[in-house]
Amino acid sequence: MALSPHHDGSELYVSCSTPRLGDVVRVRVRIPVDAAYDAVRIRSTYDADIHVESAARIMEGPRGGVVAARAGTDDGVNDGFVAEDWYEAPLLVHNPVTRYRFMLMRADGGFDWLNATGVHRSEVSDSDDFIITTFTGSPSWNVDGAVYQIFPDRFCASGKSASRNPPPWAIPTAWGVTPLARGEGSGRQWYGGDLDGIRSRLDYIRDLGFTTVYLTPFFTAGSVHRYDASTFRHVDPLLGGDEALASLARECHGKGLRLVGDLTLNHTGSGHEWFRRALADPDSPERKFYMWRSYPDDYVAWMGVPSLPKLDWSSRELRERMIDGPDSVVGRWLGGSDGLDGWRIDVANQTGRYGADDLNLQVARSVRETVDGCTGGDGVLIAEHMHDPQNDLDVNGWQGVMNYAGFSRPIWTWLCDPGNTIDYMGLGVNFCRRRGVDAVSSMREFLAHVSWKTALSHWNNLDSHDTARIATLIGDERLVAVAVGLLMAFPGVPMVFAGDECGAVGSTGEESRVSMDWESMEGTHGTQGTHGIAVMETYRRLLGLRRACPALRSGGLRWAYADDDSFAFLREDADDRILVTASRTDGRRMRIDSGYIGSGRPRLLYGDGHVEDLPEGRVFVHDRASVCLWRLDPLPVPHW
Amino acid sequence: MALSPHHDGSELYVSCSTPRLGDVVRVRVRIPVDAAYDAVRIRSTYDADIHVESAARIMEGPRGGVVAARAGTDDGVNDGFVAEDWYEAPLLVHNPVTRYRFMLMRADGGFDWLNATGVHRSEVSDSDDFIITTFTGSPSWNVDGAVYQIFPDRFCASGKSASRNPPPWAIPTAWGVTPLARGEGSGRQWYGGDLDGIRSRLDYIRDLGFTTVYLTPFFTAGSVHRYDASTFRHVDPLLGGDEALASLARECHGKGLRLVGDLTLNHTGSGHEWFRRALADPDSPERKFYMWRSYPDDYVAWMGVPSLPKLDWSSRELRERMIDGPDSVVGRWLGGSDGLDGWRIDVANQTGRYGADDLNLQVARSVRETVDGCTGGDGVLIAEHMHDPQNDLDVNGWQGVMNYAGFSRPIWTWLCDPGNTIDYMGLGVNFCRRRGVDAVSSMREFLAHVSWKTALSHWNNLDSHDTARIATLIGDERLVAVAVGLLMAFPGVPMVFAGDECGAVGSTGEESRVSMDWESMEGTHGTQGTHGIAVMETYRRLLGLRRACPALRSGGLRWAYADDDSFAFLREDADDRILVTASRTDGRRMRIDSGYIGSGRPRLLYGDGHVEDLPEGRVFVHDRASVCLWRLDPLPVPHW
Repeated sequence: MALSPHHDGSELYVSCSTPRLGDVVRVRVRIPVDAAYDAVRIRSTYDADIHVESAARIMEGPRGGVVAARAGTDDGVNDGFVAEDWYEAPLLVHNPVTRYRFMLMRADGGFDWLNATGVHRSEVSDSDDFIITTFTGSPSWNVDGAVYQIFPDRFCASGKSASRNPPPWAIPTAWGVTPLARGEGSGRQWYGGDLDGIRSRLDYIRDLGFTTVYLTPFFTAGSVHRYDASTFRHVDPLLGGDEALASLARECHGKGLRLVGDLTLNHTGSGHEWFRRALADPDSPERKFYMWRSYPDDYVAWMGVPSLPKLDWSSRELRERMIDGPDSVVGRWLGGSDGLDGWRIDVANQTGRYGADDLNLQVARSVRETVDGCTGGDGVLIAEHMHDPQNDLDVNGWQGVMNYAGFSRPIWTWLCDPGNTIDYMGLGVNFCRRRGVDAVSSMREFLAHVSWKTALSHWNNLDSHDTARIATLIGDERLVAVAVGLLMAFPGVPMVFAGDECGAVGSTGEESRVSMDWESMEGTHGTQGTHGIAVMETYRRLLGLRRACPALRSGGLRWAYADDDSFAFLREDADDRILVTASRTDGRRMRIDSGYIGSGRPRLLYGDGHVEDLPEGRVFVHDRASVCLWRLDPLPVPHW
Repeated sequence: MALSPHHDGSELYVSCSTPRLGDVVRVRVRIPVDAAYDAVRIRSTYDADIHVESAARIMEGPRGGVVAARAGTDDGVNDGFVAEDWYEAPLLVHNPVTRYRFMLMRADGGFDWLNATGVHRSEVSDSDDFIITTFTGSPSWNVDGAVYQIFPDRFCASGKSASRNPPPWAIPTAWGVTPLARGEGSGRQWYGGDLDGIRSRLDYIRDLGFTTVYLTPFFTAGSVHRYDASTFRHVDPLLGGDEALASLARECHGKGLRLVGDLTLNHTGSGHEWFRRALADPDSPERKFYMWRSYPDDYVAWMGVPSLPKLDWSSRELRERMIDGPDSVVGRWLGGSDGLDGWRIDVANQTGRYGADDLNLQVARSVRETVDGCTGGDGVLIAEHMHDPQNDLDVNGWQGVMNYAGFSRPIWTWLCDPGNTIDYMGLGVNFCRRRGVDAVSSMREFLAHVSWKTALSHWNNLDSHDTARIATLIGDERLVAVAVGLLMAFPGVPMVFAGDECGAVGSTGEESRVSMDWESMEGTHGTQGTHGIAVMETYRRLLGLRRACPALRSGGLRWAYADDDSFAFLREDADDRILVTASRTDGRRMRIDSGYIGSGRPRLLYGDGHVEDLPEGRVFVHDRASVCLWRLDPLPVPHW
């Protein structure tokens, strides 16, 4: 890719990412001096009409020699870089969601558009305009952190679990046994992990570099995954009960960790006290919590599964009990030293939606208000959305999503084993392998549809308790490491499903819910030992780099290269510039436009590659499939 | 463009375009037999989750020889065509707006996506999915018709106008004088056209081939454009008053014409009786009709123009008086032999929107309900939206828009005089000239964002009372004819601003509001004579062709070719196939993939071109810049 005009929502380019309504923010764009543009304007949308303002050139890049060098003169190795002009324009935030793009004025009187998918010569729709909102994003502890996902039954069993009596649904299963890959039995295999067990391993989690512990559901339920809650009043005694959760929260907070819970708003279990009351009493308020085709025999359920009756959000009483205010289910478990720091919302995409009815936005906004109110604005609210969440984001509801569409899928399809037989999440086919250019195109498109603060709030992941394990999907452990490198270097919060750091495998979501092999990790015995430890070091090192480099957390994203087997991008802030190169094959050579790199010599921070300066330009060489992080010399940028 | 898999929302591909909620419609897709796809699935979105179904192959295209011929074997002239397989899938319409796309399964186990912008190898967002809705579209008289836009003061003066006393704002101006191009005076030049004058010219309009007369505002106001209404109770006496409107409507209906009015819902004039009451009485209900920054001195106004105070749609009383039900302003003028057949809504995009408030959807739906109720579902409701209307369409409100973004702009930028000095509608620059591929890309993108019935309901236009005249923007009269040809052949209703058919000129919206030169047209004298008559014949012939060819009105749209200076598309239904070729330069040769054309020889229906059969394929030759319509032999298609 030749050096191209660039803007994104990061601090380099936007003076304030959460303005108040009516504020004028300043936005900047950088234009290569040889790009034949001699002026810039900004077009924004106010009340669905447009408004145009001129941008001022605030920093002029050097012209002449360095540009000539890039253009291929005969002065040998290209050690110059294309300089850029910086322009700045005022942007009035007239609506809570304000969209804008740039007009790049050509010397011939015409102009091109720059929006969030790049430069366009044609008249484009507003779909890919940049987005700024007056809504707050997720707290900095989320944006700057890293999430460790735990399925409580499978992580660690305290001494107390052995003495607990399992309920009738539970099939006691020995630690270490591979979970069933599918079927109803998979939800009943009880391994006996508990909250005290988790509490005993917090140092392990923190020492790896994670900052947030996210627990899948802990309310009493009719299965081991507990997405079929039977109450929201108590933590399942099998996990240690309410006091164990409070202790875990206190200890997390004492160690500087955050704790996030998991709540389903789309449905409850059919064993839920509300549903039982609804069935038992036609006059009960709970009857209106559910959607009856024919009371009491036929009701709407998640994916038609009878054990998961769908909630009807037109009920005011339901809203009051479940989501509105500090005494609601959402509010009651949040805040304080022994409370949660936020919620991940299960099946958020379907919540409040059925046929002609759509109350999703109202539910999301109410939940958000409660989360903000109960945490002093310091809580997270992340939605599960396996597909395209754009219509549900930047509306003052969910702060971000588990970013399957914008991160996992592009990476999965770029790196998966071509011979895999893993179902492609609802499509009824195996994962198919796509090209690097396709992965880049997808990541760029999905990023374009959210504000920058939402992009930074997303939980990116390589797998979860709902998918195959990344090690199984990809197979080749070097390519797994490529995926992990990208997870740590891409905008958004890395979320890791416990066990990935020691190479856990599994071909379905159910099978992936393996019990952690502590004995092996502690070196006593087992087969995961050596490889597991190497994988763990990959995570630890990359999490450390992410912590040490603010540019990797919140720096802008600029695509620099893409072909079938490799791609590269920059993460940049005012002080630092990191180039990320990724290859899925051995012996890749990426000739990256010198304009992206600058004149200094890239320094390898991570990975196994080298740079060759050839007459045709600077080439980044990966002798083997890998991801590399390179620190580039900072470029002069205008300060605010 | 090589022959590519295709689907659109037309009858060839969708069994029912306005299903009821819960219906299963059948959708079809055609796949070239040599495209390496061996199965098809449909992915739709239900309650923001996805659902996948297999498609069945319902018609198998011939394989072998014809394909080989296309692939470039040495059997001379390519007179074969690539056959296509047709697949059909069920689509449950679970939500009022249901989106879907196709998975094209490759033999290697992978798949590509087909959405409304074409085939994609990468994971795409839902933005460009096909759309089907349960909402009705505009009536068939709109879809199958053609609209003639009249600015009442400038079309025709009856004998009665001379005796009327102009109000103080009016500057009497002689018929034939070029209007001022800008400035406040342009709104005050009173030429004396009236409704009886229009009534006297209905045969002219009908004989040209138009079926709908659309009048810009006729309510009493403080200017000649009347977008600053001072009442909604009466037609301006300057135009002949209420009775003249009723007479005009009756005579239109008697001649088989429809009559559409123009209403501003965003604002009234500052001279409106409501606004005067609001100023005079702080306790009046009318005070709440407007948006006061500081009563009574400072209020919100359209584009900050004090004479156009913005309406506040949070007022229930305003909704009742203006839009709700048969006694509202919207309802009262509709229906019956002496009433209107619908409304065009001025500044619809900004209506109900201001800063954090957005009531646009509620207003649009209320207006729609009233229009449907007062016309028995036979009325039109078209919104003015100069930019990207996608978020305001397919929501059971406006049926379509004046399609500046999806039609006018792409055509304008492809055909405009490169030396024009005409302001590009709010962008503060002159129109710039773009390539044919850019025009196609834009038309395709904007079409992708609406349902097919909405696309067919749009009023496409080459100019209006708000823009420069097409003859002035383009200059070269052959290129103007290209634009007119595309207007008549593109999906959507052609709308022509009165005077275009005799070559009217004007560099701004105000200057374009020329008085009609009836004397010249009637051959008595004047300079427009010969050229004007030739232009008129172009309109008459093309409107006749459109009337004669259902495929041009409601047939599917399939892009077949694009380069800088020319492009081509097919309009197809089960009985007819029309190829439209357009060139902006002389001597264009378009080699169109034989798969699009079929084996028969194209027959020229309109324009000046010929076909050459060369070894490399079929070439469509335009010796001069022009548009040509070719009838192709029908292909076998599956019937419903």
